[in-house]
Amino acid sequence: MNIQSTAAKDAETPFDRQRLDRLMEEAGIDLLLATSKHNVQYLLGGYRYIFFHAMDAIGHSRYLPVLVYEKGRPDRAAYIGNKMEGMEQQVNPFWTPAVKTTCWGSVDAAQEAIAHIKALGRHGARIGIEPSFLPSDAWLALTTGLDDASFVDATGILERLRSVKTAAELDLLRRASELITDSMLAVFSGHGEGAGKAELVDALRREETGRGLQFEYCLITIGSSHNRAVSPQSWQRGEVLSLDSGGNYRGYIGDLCRMGVLGEPDSELEDLLAEVDAVQQAAFSKIRAGATGTQVIAHAEKTRKSLPNATCNDFFAHGMGLISHEAPFLMTNHPVAYDGVDADRPLEAGMVISVETTMLHPRRGFIKLEDTVAVTGNGHELIGDRGRNWNRGQA
Amino acid sequence: MNIQSTAAKDAETPFDRQRLDRLMEEAGIDLLLATSKHNVQYLLGGYRYIFFHAMDAIGHSRYLPVLVYEKGRPDRAAYIGNKMEGMEQQVNPFWTPAVKTTCWGSVDAAQEAIAHIKALGRHGARIGIEPSFLPSDAWLALTTGLDDASFVDATGILERLRSVKTAAELDLLRRASELITDSMLAVFSGHGEGAGKAELVDALRREETGRGLQFEYCLITIGSSHNRAVSPQSWQRGEVLSLDSGGNYRGYIGDLCRMGVLGEPDSELEDLLAEVDAVQQAAFSKIRAGATGTQVIAHAEKTRKSLPNATCNDFFAHGMGLISHEAPFLMTNHPVAYDGVDADRPLEAGMVISVETTMLHPRRGFIKLEDTVAVTGNGHELIGDRGRNWNRGQA
Repeated sequence: MNIQSTAAKDAETPFDRQRLDRLMEEAGIDLLLATSKHNVQYLLGGYRYIFFHAMDAIGHSRYLPVLVYEKGRPDRAAYIGNKMEGMEQQVNPFWTPAVKTTCWGSVDAAQEAIAHIKALGRHGARIGIEPSFLPSDAWLALTTGLDDASFVDATGILERLRSVKTAAELDLLRRASELITDSMLAVFSGHGEGAGKAELVDALRREETGRGLQFEYCLITIGSSHNRAVSPQSWQRGEVLSLDSGGNYRGYIGDLCRMGVLGEPDSELEDLLAEVDAVQQAAFSKIRAGATGTQVIAHAEKTRKSLPNATCNDFFAHGMGLISHEAPFLMTNHPVAYDGVDADRPLEAGMVISVETTMLHPRRGFIKLEDTVAVTGNGHELIGDRGRNWNRGQA
Repeated sequence: MNIQSTAAKDAETPFDRQRLDRLMEEAGIDLLLATSKHNVQYLLGGYRYIFFHAMDAIGHSRYLPVLVYEKGRPDRAAYIGNKMEGMEQQVNPFWTPAVKTTCWGSVDAAQEAIAHIKALGRHGARIGIEPSFLPSDAWLALTTGLDDASFVDATGILERLRSVKTAAELDLLRRASELITDSMLAVFSGHGEGAGKAELVDALRREETGRGLQFEYCLITIGSSHNRAVSPQSWQRGEVLSLDSGGNYRGYIGDLCRMGVLGEPDSELEDLLAEVDAVQQAAFSKIRAGATGTQVIAHAEKTRKSLPNATCNDFFAHGMGLISHEAPFLMTNHPVAYDGVDADRPLEAGMVISVETTMLHPRRGFIKLEDTVAVTGNGHELIGDRGRNWNRGQA
């Protein structure tokens, strides 16, 4: 293990090192071991290895990228990757002074991490890990190989680190939202009577891929059904169609829901979507740096409850970025609420929030808008503001 | 937890239950906990949840599907999934008598598994797990919540279970190979001078997606370079272009390498590709039920060594199916050899082998063929046999 001891301690990192060092200090973490694809991508400045972008399994084990970062010492950081990633290193060198592209599985990756940490001489270190993204065999190797270390959950500090997006990240999120909007509008206008759910999802997959997105998923409803799974159901005249899809652009998630209808929407449908939108707009109106999630949610909830279909209308908001639901975690009493750990912290400029209002109307079906909103110093920016009305299917 | 005690013990399972029970018996495993996407898909008969097909992370944790199977008792099996999968259950019910679509993360999924196993009353059970696909936090929950159980690695028995493909699985693998071949031929013929690596990979992604494949990756070389990463390099007249891509069709991997050239191949290029093909054909010729991997490899290696460019030509073979490298594991002295655990076991009809010969020619570049071969009773079937010669770029 060569540690470039001559490298400057203040070596340029592709992330806000002062922020990470401060978060590690507050959490009492000496060394960070990032092992999730999203956090490794973040700490490497945007890189995610194409071979394992969509899969993990190989041979008896799985891909496990590891980023080792010692608090305050970027000059002693290491990246541990798959053997094939040596070719990526040749084309675009990783910023970490140490790079070990020698692994095929999770245990050999853990062994490389152990060797690096031992070479750093940090006996008894408190090591921050990602428990949900550290396989049990790698964890056993680490606890055995570093028996004087203690291990703590670093999920929260990595969430906090990522929660404020840079201008470059906001550009990627904008692009993801715009491309998903374009894809959805193409699917609505390009399909009509008899189009099946599987056909519509496949079409959206192609539209997103053709625009350079990596398609993640599509949840879809037709007509009065609230079921969002693919089924033999097909689009019929007068029926609503909801498309809720996630796709990523260079790892950054676009996640929107837009509504279509086959034919002209009647006045009831116009009213229902307006009711959904009113809740969305109420949330947007309170989003600015310094406001809290609690304030945003209270206003949206007050609006929701004041409207005719409150009992079948649901409001939800959550941070997003490299993963679909991330910090800030704003809600405490929703089925997908996590722990609302950020509900009373002031929003910061650069945070990005997904805002969703979902009406499960008993007769007219699943009527939803999901939008992406960036927090700015004096308000908000709606990222991807097109297609929010009823989109017509092919006549 | 409702265990349908009235269900028949001989309930239909979508996999070969006798084979799994026998493998569990041999390994001394009472209960199996499958937690990888590929093994859960296999044990559920082909189902993989679209929302988390390409990603895992959500909120503070990750998706963790769990299939609980008690040896000999399919009537007591359970599937534990994400809350949104309840809608999938409504459309296409899971075969397991117990279904709990209640989870958002890894620890709550582990808690559901603990509750199910406790309800089964199997105290002191030996539980087979997938150590590389069981997150450390779920593992901690299991060992704490089932403190009288012992845990053993079930990776190997699941590999053995999957190693012989059914006719339906072979159909999916055929389809994957054919669609990848079509996609590659379209990329070769549709691109010419000046096409960049990124452009070519994006084009292949679109071609595969347009045909209904889920694109996984593309490794690419141009000209005399052996570097397979995307870089600013572009295709020039007279240069070779290798495309090595994996994509899956309903989870089943197609993984082929095909060669292109811009212009007509000269006689040296014809000879080099013929040399690569000769090694491939040598391997194919020995593949049949009852032969061993060692025999196949010995013949391919003997052929390789007898040919002019032996020193820069490499041979590799490995099983494939739901993951890119899986059982049978045939080789023991190759950089990607794993442990060759199946090298001396007779091949069985229905096994599927990826055969790769890779020449790193110092002047002419990276020249490779990768093919997929199914073992049959009296020989082999080459799955995706088109495009194995030099494919011309756009003039």
